[in-house]
Amino acid sequence: MMDRTWTDAALVDGTMPIDAVPTPSLLLDEAKLARNIQRLAEHVKGLGASLRPHMKTAKSIDVARRIYPAQPGAITVSTLAEAEYFADHGFLDITYAVGVSPAAAKRGLELCRRTGANLKFLLDTVEQADALGAAGKAAGIVPSAFIELDVDDHRGGLKPDDPMLIEVADRLAAAGADLVGVLSHAGESYALDSRHALIAAAENETAATVRAAGILRARGHACPIVSVGSTPTAHFAQNLDGITEVRAGVYMFFDLVQHGVGVCALDDLAISVLATVIGAKPEKGWVLIDAGWMALSRDRGTSGQKVDQGYGVVCDVRGQVYEDLIVVQASQEHGILAMRQGSAQAMPELPIGTKVRILPNHACATAAQHDFYNVVKGESPWIQARWSRLRGW
Amino acid sequence: MMDRTWTDAALVDGTMPIDAVPTPSLLLDEAKLARNIQRLAEHVKGLGASLRPHMKTAKSIDVARRIYPAQPGAITVSTLAEAEYFADHGFLDITYAVGVSPAAAKRGLELCRRTGANLKFLLDTVEQADALGAAGKAAGIVPSAFIELDVDDHRGGLKPDDPMLIEVADRLAAAGADLVGVLSHAGESYALDSRHALIAAAENETAATVRAAGILRARGHACPIVSVGSTPTAHFAQNLDGITEVRAGVYMFFDLVQHGVGVCALDDLAISVLATVIGAKPEKGWVLIDAGWMALSRDRGTSGQKVDQGYGVVCDVRGQVYEDLIVVQASQEHGILAMRQGSAQAMPELPIGTKVRILPNHACATAAQHDFYNVVKGESPWIQARWSRLRGW
Repeated sequence: MMDRTWTDAALVDGTMPIDAVPTPSLLLDEAKLARNIQRLAEHVKGLGASLRPHMKTAKSIDVARRIYPAQPGAITVSTLAEAEYFADHGFLDITYAVGVSPAAAKRGLELCRRTGANLKFLLDTVEQADALGAAGKAAGIVPSAFIELDVDDHRGGLKPDDPMLIEVADRLAAAGADLVGVLSHAGESYALDSRHALIAAAENETAATVRAAGILRARGHACPIVSVGSTPTAHFAQNLDGITEVRAGVYMFFDLVQHGVGVCALDDLAISVLATVIGAKPEKGWVLIDAGWMALSRDRGTSGQKVDQGYGVVCDVRGQVYEDLIVVQASQEHGILAMRQGSAQAMPELPIGTKVRILPNHACATAAQHDFYNVVKGESPWIQARWSRLRGW
Repeated sequence: MMDRTWTDAALVDGTMPIDAVPTPSLLLDEAKLARNIQRLAEHVKGLGASLRPHMKTAKSIDVARRIYPAQPGAITVSTLAEAEYFADHGFLDITYAVGVSPAAAKRGLELCRRTGANLKFLLDTVEQADALGAAGKAAGIVPSAFIELDVDDHRGGLKPDDPMLIEVADRLAAAGADLVGVLSHAGESYALDSRHALIAAAENETAATVRAAGILRARGHACPIVSVGSTPTAHFAQNLDGITEVRAGVYMFFDLVQHGVGVCALDDLAISVLATVIGAKPEKGWVLIDAGWMALSRDRGTSGQKVDQGYGVVCDVRGQVYEDLIVVQASQEHGILAMRQGSAQAMPELPIGTKVRILPNHACATAAQHDFYNVVKGESPWIQARWSRLRGW
């Protein structure tokens, strides 16, 4: 359906004005994308580590090519569908950063066999080590694996001092797999919002991960890769001694959650949802738009932050923020705009048909609701290109 | 990517066991679907009204054909992409139940011209009436329109006694559009959970809508369609005198929110997300699965209900509920299972590789995260078929 609409509207790169894009639609500002990519690349390089971008946010080969304009490089993925998609586009150095199941081992190794990809799996149990080893033998491939660390009680992984760390490493070796390193993710850093606490979280992530690598090396495991990462800790890390690589994903686009954490300015947010005003309830101070949770996602990640942004911050069609105007409610295809409680600002005039942009709480979740990016560039009123994105598993 | 995986696994109707389906995946039990469809159809028919199912939940021609096995019938849609998809499959009697923008009027009328569809638009302002009339004149088509009513302060629409009701109706006539009726949606019924309150909400929805139709008829507008609907009020309506049609969507699948409202039993839930156990944290009572919010959606619709179901209720692979086991946390591709707080039950044994099913909070939101349904039937261990679903706008 969308293809027909786009054809009707005669989209070719640079020939469709933003105003003519069917709504709701996802916009991506390639100038902000480039700036965000450069910022973290320089920061990590300056600390002597390399960056392994997580493609779970963008899920787009076009975005990957902005990060690696010369040739494919190291990436992280969150699904095997992403691994397959990027491998088919020449990205062969891939970390699959979700704990491996027996079925995922089989499917991932088939990808290695078919494309020559070096797919690195993640695990934290001897059962997974055994299953991965068995799958490797069946496929005639030596599988690569990270041991997942738990540095902040966030999710899975082993504590550096857990005796299971060595047991899993030994079991991997016995099972015929290649232990490539340790991997941690300071997911609790999303809940922080002070520079001091973020620097401490980064230090903790680094220290625990380096410590685990040291324990494994003392046991005779080479453990060449020492991998840390989350967008907040990646940006606030002051010292990465002992760390070989950093992973981050949402930094490419940023979002209101990251703004609330303190990692980025509002002006750094590279994606937004274009919407059209379809109604109003002046007596309630409401304006209705045609972007609901289907277009914005149900993510309310700012609800626990100092500033609750509702379902998103409202901008005009050029991307200029309307101060204090947010999406206060969302149903499937309706959003309700209203001034933030206690605001001294007047509600802007937004007649039916007006286009607005919504800055999202969580870039990963909002982008996932869309099949492609309408690429814009700064203040240009033209769509520059359309980049598709992957979904599914 | 998915196509290759499915081909590898040699899926043909009835030849793939549920155990072999890549995870996370969406399952749809066609036996429960059929039962849910029949239940509301009989209830509404018994009250002398007709049903205009809302396809925003299922977004699937295969589901529509279960509702209308003989020939296409009346439907409701939430996007123009849905209208186009169903019209292209022969469903030409369509209500587009989102307030119309000038661009949507143009696109919708192009669909009417191309397919002969009778697409009914929704509006509540004179500006929209003017825009729809102008778009109709430009297209050489007399557009059909409902006036949207507000019966419970939920979202948009006019109160029956608002003088604007007559003004908009008159303006539609002057603009050369066809006023086909009034339409209300008792969206606040989702927040109720007693039979008494639900019956009252249905009575209020009916009374206000019939009253608005009467006001318009007294003014000389025929107002042939008097349309109400929400899944809770549709099921609890005791009397639909004066109502010609009822709309509902989520009733086909049901979900935990509707269970919390009291509309359905847990056993009526027709969709679930199949997932695989990928880890555990026994010291915390956690089991990790490979379904996070990407597969389950971020919807936390039960969080305000008497029983908070987290991100979903956990069942075994056959669909039998594990009492008190829920998804307590979700990140993008990880779910954390734990026993409900205060539960006297023991955590079931769920070794790595075990398959589970998750019953979702909100069927519309969860289904939207997937491109197709893996159709199952009762206790059969076989996938019966794969039904695609639409997304986008």
